[in-house]
Amino acid sequence: MSEVWRQENSPTLGAEKSILLQQNVRRPWPKTRKNVTGCLGFVKRHLFRVGDDWYFLFILGVLMALISFALDFTVVKLLKAHRWLFEQLEDSNLLQYISWTVYPIAMTTFSTGFSQCVSPQSGGSGIPELKTILTGVLLEEYLTMKNLGAKVVGLTCSLAAGSTIFLGKVGPFVHISSMIATYLGRIRTTVTRDYENKNKQYEMLVAAAAVGVASCFGAPISGVLFSVEVMSSHFAVRNYWRGFFAATCGAFVFRLLAVFNSEQETIIALFKTKFKVDFPFDLPETFIFIVLGIICGLLSCVYLCCQRWLVGYIRRNAFILKLVAAEKAVYSGLVTLLLASITFPGSLGQFMACRLTMKELLSSLFDHRSWGVLSQNATLDIQARVDPDNLWIEWCHPSFTFFGTLLFFLFMKFWMLILATTMPMPAGYFMPVLIYGAVIGRLVGEVVAVIFPNGIKSEGVLNPIIPGGYALAGAAAFSGAVTHTLSTALLVFELTGQMAHFLPVLLAVLVANAIAQKFQPSFYDGTIIVKKLPYLPKIRSVDIGSYNVTVEEFMNTNIMCLDKSFNYTDILRLVTSRSDAVYPVVENSESMVLVGSVQRNEVVKFLQAQREEKCRKEQLQLKEGDINLWEKCHIDPVTFQLSPSTSLHQAHKLFDLLVLQHMFVSSAGKVVGFVSRNELKKVIEDLTNGRSPVKM
Amino acid sequence: MSEVWRQENSPTLGAEKSILLQQNVRRPWPKTRKNVTGCLGFVKRHLFRVGDDWYFLFILGVLMALISFALDFTVVKLLKAHRWLFEQLEDSNLLQYISWTVYPIAMTTFSTGFSQCVSPQSGGSGIPELKTILTGVLLEEYLTMKNLGAKVVGLTCSLAAGSTIFLGKVGPFVHISSMIATYLGRIRTTVTRDYENKNKQYEMLVAAAAVGVASCFGAPISGVLFSVEVMSSHFAVRNYWRGFFAATCGAFVFRLLAVFNSEQETIIALFKTKFKVDFPFDLPETFIFIVLGIICGLLSCVYLCCQRWLVGYIRRNAFILKLVAAEKAVYSGLVTLLLASITFPGSLGQFMACRLTMKELLSSLFDHRSWGVLSQNATLDIQARVDPDNLWIEWCHPSFTFFGTLLFFLFMKFWMLILATTMPMPAGYFMPVLIYGAVIGRLVGEVVAVIFPNGIKSEGVLNPIIPGGYALAGAAAFSGAVTHTLSTALLVFELTGQMAHFLPVLLAVLVANAIAQKFQPSFYDGTIIVKKLPYLPKIRSVDIGSYNVTVEEFMNTNIMCLDKSFNYTDILRLVTSRSDAVYPVVENSESMVLVGSVQRNEVVKFLQAQREEKCRKEQLQLKEGDINLWEKCHIDPVTFQLSPSTSLHQAHKLFDLLVLQHMFVSSAGKVVGFVSRNELKKVIEDLTNGRSPVKM
Repeated sequence: MSEVWRQENSPTLGAEKSILLQQNVRRPWPKTRKNVTGCLGFVKRHLFRVGDDWYFLFILGVLMALISFALDFTVVKLLKAHRWLFEQLEDSNLLQYISWTVYPIAMTTFSTGFSQCVSPQSGGSGIPELKTILTGVLLEEYLTMKNLGAKVVGLTCSLAAGSTIFLGKVGPFVHISSMIATYLGRIRTTVTRDYENKNKQYEMLVAAAAVGVASCFGAPISGVLFSVEVMSSHFAVRNYWRGFFAATCGAFVFRLLAVFNSEQETIIALFKTKFKVDFPFDLPETFIFIVLGIICGLLSCVYLCCQRWLVGYIRRNAFILKLVAAEKAVYSGLVTLLLASITFPGSLGQFMACRLTMKELLSSLFDHRSWGVLSQNATLDIQARVDPDNLWIEWCHPSFTFFGTLLFFLFMKFWMLILATTMPMPAGYFMPVLIYGAVIGRLVGEVVAVIFPNGIKSEGVLNPIIPGGYALAGAAAFSGAVTHTLSTALLVFELTGQMAHFLPVLLAVLVANAIAQKFQPSFYDGTIIVKKLPYLPKIRSVDIGSYNVTVEEFMNTNIMCLDKSFNYTDILRLVTSRSDAVYPVVENSESMVLVGSVQRNEVVKFLQAQREEKCRKEQLQLKEGDINLWEKCHIDPVTFQLSPSTSLHQAHKLFDLLVLQHMFVSSAGKVVGFVSRNELKKVIEDLTNGRSPVKM
Repeated sequence: MSEVWRQENSPTLGAEKSILLQQNVRRPWPKTRKNVTGCLGFVKRHLFRVGDDWYFLFILGVLMALISFALDFTVVKLLKAHRWLFEQLEDSNLLQYISWTVYPIAMTTFSTGFSQCVSPQSGGSGIPELKTILTGVLLEEYLTMKNLGAKVVGLTCSLAAGSTIFLGKVGPFVHISSMIATYLGRIRTTVTRDYENKNKQYEMLVAAAAVGVASCFGAPISGVLFSVEVMSSHFAVRNYWRGFFAATCGAFVFRLLAVFNSEQETIIALFKTKFKVDFPFDLPETFIFIVLGIICGLLSCVYLCCQRWLVGYIRRNAFILKLVAAEKAVYSGLVTLLLASITFPGSLGQFMACRLTMKELLSSLFDHRSWGVLSQNATLDIQARVDPDNLWIEWCHPSFTFFGTLLFFLFMKFWMLILATTMPMPAGYFMPVLIYGAVIGRLVGEVVAVIFPNGIKSEGVLNPIIPGGYALAGAAAFSGAVTHTLSTALLVFELTGQMAHFLPVLLAVLVANAIAQKFQPSFYDGTIIVKKLPYLPKIRSVDIGSYNVTVEEFMNTNIMCLDKSFNYTDILRLVTSRSDAVYPVVENSESMVLVGSVQRNEVVKFLQAQREEKCRKEQLQLKEGDINLWEKCHIDPVTFQLSPSTSLHQAHKLFDLLVLQHMFVSSAGKVVGFVSRNELKKVIEDLTNGRSPVKM
């Protein structure tokens, strides 16, 4: 060993010898070295693979957490500035009013103006559009980087307008996340040169939706589940794992940044609660939780109905339509002026805890203490400033009591929220719904606490009612009913870092969902319907005789096939006469045996190439060659086809499961028609409206 | 109105008049009455619909909760009896030994004997078989009522053997639940006369798996997620909602029964914990949680590998094979004798907390207090009886310390658990894995607590380490790695009713899963492989060049088609020469245009009917009529077909997604081959082993 070292260190050795030495040198512990090198190589091969999905998912999670944190940070500063300004102007009511209204108006008009100017697609939440994209419809402009910029800036301003306009950030975050995922996917494709794999794009988008929710709330599990429920009707467990990984990274970094920013000592949930874990609720309270679920379910139906009506009304009303079309920013400004005037603390705002931010509203509602007990033991004067340790005081108006404020809040915010959702700027509609539900729950909880001041059973040990638990259940039930999801139950637990009430909350959410799903489409489906985006309605099998409907009854028989024997003129005539996206290719026009299908744009490209070729040949006076569509165009083999006897249900399931746009119908090998999403949609609508299906 | 009343009450009115009156009577508030009647009718129409799924899901949930509770109740009584007997024999070591060993031996031999006698399919956990059933393979004997009885009785006895044999109940419960679901499904079919809908059966089975887990632990959300992850590779959101509903009903009733039985004051989680919610863990501890995840992941690989090896060894070893084949009960008895002798508290058992039941083991491990601190302040004598308030004392051997017992437990239970899983009786393998993981976590946690007695940062406020949190993370990570699921993270939170540690636990589970999924098939997949049940392996796309493989390379071209022009003899020759389950039907043997497919048993039935017909006609000396297979047999239309250029990945996805058993391959309308699960499995195995695919 020592000899080897001496030789290596000797400067007199020539280059050749040194190379030889490097090959044959007797290094210490050759076996161990080999093993270690082998291990390192193994780790390198398995961990550091360029283009591996996990890296991109990790990057996606971290990026979203950074954006979420930066956005929150900015918004908090902006809100603080607004509050500081408002408090400085204590002496003049007029100045206070001006500061209260002008600030949010400036924010919303800028948000609307900027986002509409840069990219008109950036308005709204973005979830309905993403849902449409995931069904296979191409809406490319929704996933551009320009849109991303507009959305981030616009959202920051929308949120900075605070609880006056009462909007959140979940939807836009899902949208932002999917835009980043698309961009990362493009980088991945460039790096790995794996241009073929379209599946990856889809998988990334699904994971992105989960990351969006997770990085908003620091809630990875419910983020994944929420995105699953909202986004798709079928789910691969593989994608669920990816979503989990990315969402955990996102949520972890998001909470980590809060610790680094000294907001918290360590990683804990977003909203701290102190519910009694030993005895969170008494058994008979379960019934009240179920009643709360029923209330939330019914109210959500009314909300969804009114919301759709108002959006429809705005699209019909000539004056508003003109205003919105010409000056979107002015419309936003006017709406904000109305909302801000109402929420001004000097006027009606004092009856609806309007000085609290969105986060403070939720914190105050999740308070484990009963406000009834608290207000008996405190002096309830209107304070000049918001006391961060006693947020509940904002709800306790000296003459109006907190029952009054809660009821007034419910009444006013109902239409104010619906009005706010019509503003064409980037904003989410989940957080306000969550808060609204928490208010419903809190009201019920406080009423129960007043009726049973010592708890329901009250034998021996006192187990007083915890109204915060009801607020939790109300938030989960109402938001779950509006979005048609069950995972909101888990979301509120991840938000509060405890799950003492998990069974009653689940029951409330189930009941509310049952009612809402029975009578109304979800918020996102409703938006898709109002915005006239393509979608496939669900079959409500029980009411209508849908089980007996077969493909034969609704397929489109008006079909034109490309024959293998077609010449240039035939093909040209076919393509000019019909504008289907896909043409079936048959062996010959008599047998009609389906061979495959060809995209319209492929055929058009082929025709153009042929014409040029023809011109060139004519110029050179060459004999015209045989035109062969079949060699130049890519003919897709037929993987899926329907039979005329296939049931509507099965066809629907296939379109849904395989994200198809069209399918040919063949009977005994012969093509007899085709079914696209349009035909399916039409037959389902006909059935729902009681009409019998009409063949197209 | 008064007149009406008088008339109605008058006895002199004739029957005719009374009928007339009933029709025309002027009742009070006709409009309100009509509305109320309308409402009631509406509720009746919408709620009380015979055969509605929700009722069956509800019944399923309640039934499973009742079974779970009754089983737990019986097992607790049996275990108490055993403990009482053991404690009564305090004076004689020998008698204690006999009582310690004979009781579990009696239980396991009875369990094995009874279950094997009634239904040999009732052994083991049942999850692997259910997983196979959900891929579309018919294993009917696994879902019979006879099997249900054998499983329930056998499981009760297995569990009554206690922590000696260290087995649980999750797997059998999933199995029991699916058997009940099948039975309920049959009732539903009878009631609604909806014989067609095979989908419902599948949907009920998926929900049943969720109910099984939920009613074991009272954990509905993780029950649903666990069943989704374990059971299938794709799931419909619709089924997820059904699962949620049924699982919530099951979990709620299960916890409700505990309250009615005065075990608890109100509905709370199964394992109470008192973790510090304000500061559950310090930021640097996250790294230790990740290290714990790595340890659990690696150990799970070793465990899975050894487990598969032992099961394989037993199937090869001539002596054991003979013993198991002849006398399964004797084999169980011998194994139990060995295990019970080792765990006898007078011998090695004192070093592995063997006096605790499974539930007590988990409770003691989730304790929020540090055993290091506790053992300093207490006298650690070996107690005659188990102290239910200080279960941790069982772990603290006076001379061996708790580090020794934890390590010894890990070492011994490792092979004892693997040995126990070879006993052919109904028992679950999830709970022991969960406990084993908790022990790993606890050990790591206690070590960390010793190294950092005042917490890691220890500036100002003391935030001591909570070893219970590590136990939680270890349990989730190890059980998650063994079963390849992430939902165990949620399960431990639902078990303990809090989620203070949710991010570090998720990280640990993710890391452990990444390692385990990389190197080993899951426990259930491993069992499927060892038991040689049909299954479709996953494609590990990165290692092998699977993206370039097309159907052409591995399809089975040895195909025989039924021609429309075939006569009786031709068909008979075909059917006798080949025993495919499905035959393709072509237009004629030259064109080979695929028209449809026909089941073998349909053809056989047809041939039998034809022969009888023929005999009858010959007897009557009638002219032989034309044989028409096409009118008498049901020819299934071809909905899915592959093209030779379809990629392996896409074909695999279709088989997986659509639960298919076979698909025909057609090129330009002509059938050229077929692919079944066998071909797919073979090509994937070939690729994994580095062989190039061979056409069959």
